[in-house]
Amino acid sequence: MPSLIRDRSASSAAMLAVFGDEALLDAALRFEASLAQAQADVGVIDQASAACIRAACLERPDVETLAEAAAHAGTLAIPLVEIIRKRITDPAIAKLVHKGATSQDLADTALMLQAKAGAALVVEDARRLADALVVLAERYAAAPMLGRTLLQGALPITFGLKVAGWLQGVAGAVARFERETSAIQLQLGGATGSLAGLDGQAQAVVERLAELLDLPAPATPWHARREGLAGLASSLAILTGAVGKIAGDIALLAQGEVAEAFEPRIDGRGGSSAMAHKRNPTGCQVALSAAIRAPHLAATITAALPQQHERGLGGWQAEGPVLADLFQLTHGALAAMAPVIEGLEVDTDRMAANLAAADVGTDAGESEALTSRALAAYRKDR
Amino acid sequence: MPSLIRDRSASSAAMLAVFGDEALLDAALRFEASLAQAQADVGVIDQASAACIRAACLERPDVETLAEAAAHAGTLAIPLVEIIRKRITDPAIAKLVHKGATSQDLADTALMLQAKAGAALVVEDARRLADALVVLAERYAAAPMLGRTLLQGALPITFGLKVAGWLQGVAGAVARFERETSAIQLQLGGATGSLAGLDGQAQAVVERLAELLDLPAPATPWHARREGLAGLASSLAILTGAVGKIAGDIALLAQGEVAEAFEPRIDGRGGSSAMAHKRNPTGCQVALSAAIRAPHLAATITAALPQQHERGLGGWQAEGPVLADLFQLTHGALAAMAPVIEGLEVDTDRMAANLAAADVGTDAGESEALTSRALAAYRKDR
Amino acid sequence: MPSLIRDRSASSAAMLAVFGDEALLDAALRFEASLAQAQADVGVIDQASAACIRAACLERPDVETLAEAAAHAGTLAIPLVEIIRKRITDPAIAKLVHKGATSQDLADTALMLQAKAGAALVVEDARRLADALVVLAERYAAAPMLGRTLLQGALPITFGLKVAGWLQGVAGAVARFERETSAIQLQLGGATGSLAGLDGQAQAVVERLAELLDLPAPATPWHARREGLAGLASSLAILTGAVGKIAGDIALLAQGEVAEAFEPRIDGRGGSSAMAHKRNPTGCQVALSAAIRAPHLAATITAALPQQHERGLGGWQAEGPVLADLFQLTHGALAAMAPVIEGLEVDTDRMAANLAAADVGTDAGESEALTSRALAAYRKDR
Amino acid sequence: MPSLIRDRSASSAAMLAVFGDEALLDAALRFEASLAQAQADVGVIDQASAACIRAACLERPDVETLAEAAAHAGTLAIPLVEIIRKRITDPAIAKLVHKGATSQDLADTALMLQAKAGAALVVEDARRLADALVVLAERYAAAPMLGRTLLQGALPITFGLKVAGWLQGVAGAVARFERETSAIQLQLGGATGSLAGLDGQAQAVVERLAELLDLPAPATPWHARREGLAGLASSLAILTGAVGKIAGDIALLAQGEVAEAFEPRIDGRGGSSAMAHKRNPTGCQVALSAAIRAPHLAATITAALPQQHERGLGGWQAEGPVLADLFQLTHGALAAMAPVIEGLEVDTDRMAANLAAADVGTDAGESEALTSRALAAYRKDR
Repeated sequence: MPSLIRDRSASSAAMLAVFGDEALLDAALRFEASLAQAQADVGVIDQASAACIRAACLERPDVETLAEAAAHAGTLAIPLVEIIRKRITDPAIAKLVHKGATSQDLADTALMLQAKAGAALVVEDARRLADALVVLAERYAAAPMLGRTLLQGALPITFGLKVAGWLQGVAGAVARFERETSAIQLQLGGATGSLAGLDGQAQAVVERLAELLDLPAPATPWHARREGLAGLASSLAILTGAVGKIAGDIALLAQGEVAEAFEPRIDGRGGSSAMAHKRNPTGCQVALSAAIRAPHLAATITAALPQQHERGLGGWQAEGPVLADLFQLTHGALAAMAPVIEGLEVDTDRMAANLAAADVGTDAGESEALTSRALAAYRKDR
Repeated sequence: MPSLIRDRSASSAAMLAVFGDEALLDAALRFEASLAQAQADVGVIDQASAACIRAACLERPDVETLAEAAAHAGTLAIPLVEIIRKRITDPAIAKLVHKGATSQDLADTALMLQAKAGAALVVEDARRLADALVVLAERYAAAPMLGRTLLQGALPITFGLKVAGWLQGVAGAVARFERETSAIQLQLGGATGSLAGLDGQAQAVVERLAELLDLPAPATPWHARREGLAGLASSLAILTGAVGKIAGDIALLAQGEVAEAFEPRIDGRGGSSAMAHKRNPTGCQVALSAAIRAPHLAATITAALPQQHERGLGGWQAEGPVLADLFQLTHGALAAMAPVIEGLEVDTDRMAANLAAADVGTDAGESEALTSRALAAYRKDR
Repeated sequence: MPSLIRDRSASSAAMLAVFGDEALLDAALRFEASLAQAQADVGVIDQASAACIRAACLERPDVETLAEAAAHAGTLAIPLVEIIRKRITDPAIAKLVHKGATSQDLADTALMLQAKAGAALVVEDARRLADALVVLAERYAAAPMLGRTLLQGALPITFGLKVAGWLQGVAGAVARFERETSAIQLQLGGATGSLAGLDGQAQAVVERLAELLDLPAPATPWHARREGLAGLASSLAILTGAVGKIAGDIALLAQGEVAEAFEPRIDGRGGSSAMAHKRNPTGCQVALSAAIRAPHLAATITAALPQQHERGLGGWQAEGPVLADLFQLTHGALAAMAPVIEGLEVDTDRMAANLAAADVGTDAGESEALTSRALAAYRKDR
Repeated sequence: MPSLIRDRSASSAAMLAVFGDEALLDAALRFEASLAQAQADVGVIDQASAACIRAACLERPDVETLAEAAAHAGTLAIPLVEIIRKRITDPAIAKLVHKGATSQDLADTALMLQAKAGAALVVEDARRLADALVVLAERYAAAPMLGRTLLQGALPITFGLKVAGWLQGVAGAVARFERETSAIQLQLGGATGSLAGLDGQAQAVVERLAELLDLPAPATPWHARREGLAGLASSLAILTGAVGKIAGDIALLAQGEVAEAFEPRIDGRGGSSAMAHKRNPTGCQVALSAAIRAPHLAATITAALPQQHERGLGGWQAEGPVLADLFQLTHGALAAMAPVIEGLEVDTDRMAANLAAADVGTDAGESEALTSRALAAYRKDR
């Protein structure tokens, strides 16, 4: 019953799906199925039991019932594991479900599977945006415009230099995000992160499970050290801010009195319920709204770092929904701005006119050369 | 497609419904229907047209289609008004839908109708929690325990004094919240807040509409001054923090080595997927998690205050989803902790034993008198 | 050794003094002196001892030495009380220094004495700003200009209506701040808030001490319930946001291409180190910078609410410096914007020209009437 | 006049000095002196002029006067450059001061020089802390204790495993911080980042200046893309959180009823002004307080990312003081916790007793092996 209308206005349908309940349950079931299979593959349980458990993990349970049950229990794992076990007739096999694992193992790994899918969407649209920025920077490398500082006209630049700066900001932020995705790892630690209950085969199970889930295996369980997630969250907020910088500049350029650049005209987008003449910068709106919200969400996860002992109370539980929001907002911003840049309407005559009106000469310094340097640096790093 | 499982683990089903899509659409349709009716009642349009518009606002449109359309348009009002108009055969009447209003009027007023319903839930469960705290403070007014400062044993207090402090914190926070609900008002300003397009009858329309929607009429439109919402949001976060303080203390008292107080035993709650002996403080977990998240959400709305000109770009759009989250988290915390306090298991023997072990004497100072003072002050204010 | 250059660029000299070390030490010494005097006045200690203690509290100790000692001890009270005691030759009297109090009593009360002085500055300059806004709103009540939404030209308003909205935002925020200053109270609770150690005269001591310090006496000690401080902090951030809204609008209006309003020319202010023609909106810069920082500081104090037991570890200690920063930023914003509004240069011809160029007609709706309503409401509330 | 007592209680004297006014002025003067020298070295100005400018940059101006002047002007560069110029008798040479630079170039580069010095302190004490954690983890690799999840006793671990987790958290956070220090670069862009006014020698000047200041030269000016600073700020907050995690755990272990580990006894530290028996975890207090404040500061800088055009209004100005606070808090936390870990008193008997009392068996799983893996991974990465 959360609001699709509100969430969809801030994110893409694709990213909402990645962090939706069906994807969550699929990831959770996949964890339990693969856990059994991994244990069978290294000899901790037998293959027949694993097959039986895998079969019991095929069907997705009813979301609403499970949501109530998980809220009551305090964790998703308890009712979900119970459902899986009930599907298995042999009580000895049923008992093997979730063997060696704890609630957090399921929750963390499911979140990581979702994060991995989400990261792919983020990188894809960030590259799409960056590619569009490259085209724009090249096209307008020499187009003079007024540089503005402290919201006042300053000295000339070229539009290419401005766009090159946008590109570098996004490129730097994406590079950081890609580095921070190294936090997206399998979690398996058992009740207290000691990997007890796996008959001395813990490391082999971890490695096989990582293989089956196509997630990196961590050196050790990370149940109580969450700085990787905080890094990931921060990098999403920073990327959103880099996109928000572009959106803010374009919205300022699109003001009627400035009129130097505009979002592309898209049928039915950017209108007003009261004024037919309006052409609102709707893509910028999405990105700016995301850039306002994202830093606070990243701070939530960083603030939750001092989690108590072997699993925190409250801090750990805050991470999942907040990280989901961050992925959604970041991708919402990227998906909104990529087409804006691809179709940006640029009025170089107006740029020239505004520059002339400012009466600050025509010396754009090294703008063209700097644009080239920025593009070259981007190409080299990619 | 947002995750019910994640949201329900942090909030009540009732509050999720208040901020769900169906409630949002009902509020939006009610706004348009009442707007027409108000205009008819003061003679701006005729009653027959109003009746026709009201009829066209009866049926809730499909949520998913509308979510896509609203995301595309950049605002819910545009596709929703279009749907309502299409339901009306007479184009002259169709044109009267949304007359004098702008997208923000619909969005803000719908949000306020949801906030009003949400506030009632918050106050109800806050009072339930406070009532339970009164009972607890009275019962243990004289029960000695170790006072602890900086997480170290200090000097004696009574458990009643501790509970009285919890009560005062919640009571102060609820009083603030109730004051701040004065921000929950009708919004009607038209495109730029000038109330143009209402044939000189603007104030009468505002007052009648407020009556019909059972919301206070504002002195003037508040489209671009949002400090009231920031106050409301902050008061929710502070209330959550006051509840989190209780949760934190109980979780510390429930540690095995301290063992002075415990959440009530509820079948299926607080268990562990890996350890049958565990009795996790699940209510405290919900409240602490909310207390970690809420301040950042309130800060988002305060950070969005410098909204540009007559309606901001990005800042305004960030408010709705964040305010919804805040109501959900606050009520989640209250709904989790009220039964915890009502059923709290208190071990006064253990309190006495821990106090004795700390070897800090038995002088609890004015603990009992202060408990009485706190209870009296609470009763007087209520 | 903290940076005066950095802090002074964001705050007023007056508010920096209020939260400076000399004021802190004066408040702390006044607390100890008055505590002794209050105890003497109600008969807990004798008047001669109190006089001796008061004399020992006259001279301010060296700041640098004390800063090192306080950092080492973990609290200011320990070295300060030691210094006072050493100044007293009679060991029996020396022992009476700080009687019945704990470190937090001194720290909280000193902070509140500083907050009280800070609040007076905030209210004074907020009223100055509001008064200037009243003048401006009256003067331009009928001056037509383009209303702008989502950073796009929308429909006409008057400049008076815009200013009236600024006024209402500030007035609402100041009213909230003044309500929240009710949190500025004496703190006296002793080690665990039980008021032990005052020979059954605790309440009388509290009341007399409150009188001597000219601070309200709390119903009970508030050592572990801090929602009042969070409310105070939030109200400062919201007030800063309301001021930031004005600053943001003026900076947008002052853009060369818009050119409708400008900060007053002040010799040596708003220049550029590189461009002689620049006229930077320096007052707006201060306010906008404060509006970016303040919400995060308020959130810090709200996030710290779940403080453990009878005095928290970390959360409590975070409040003092953050609250000082908030007062400094808020007053910095007010002190920067009051003269901006008092001397604002308004170009009504340019407003009219920009409006005409937008080609959206001339109907400013009820702008004038709404301006009058807003001014009347403000006058009534004041 | 900012409060040394408040700041020193949260940071080290060394880091306060790094971000103090004297260091700021030294960095600013060094920037202007080196800028002239770099221009002379590549032939943009003559060596005699450079020598004259360098001489004029030797003496530090009065801090208080400059603080007032900078606040009035809106930027430090204007009064400082004026002072330098006044020291030069030949007006033609005086004009060459600050040639090709803008206020932001001075402010950013000075901040980066301070950040570089600050980063060295952070890394030094982070390594000291990590080294102490290695010793601790090795010593107690096999010492059994109760693992605790959700603040409840769970299953056995070894203390070594817990410490290894602390180590990995700090090590991961330091590695991130060291990566993010790549943002610490020279800034030189001129008024709008176009490097105008350097006679076509801009790149050579940039490179020579970078050499003289011992800072990396950026590919292009970064005046309007600030994601590097946001990354640096976030990494400081995350490192603080990783240290806060340790502090939180130790404070919980030091509770009287748990009594498994204690901060070392240091004369005059951790006492109470009211209770002689208290032994407060003062180092943990500093770290936890920092961990509460730091995430909000990092979020401030991320929130400021959408800075307008070629230099923002408000957002840019918010970065300096907030980044200084972050360095101070992070180093305060590290400097407080390194000696705590080095001297930690561990009571393995009590650990064993608490574990036995919990009645959860003795199977610590792979705790020892995981400790070894963690230590090996740490050694490999270092």
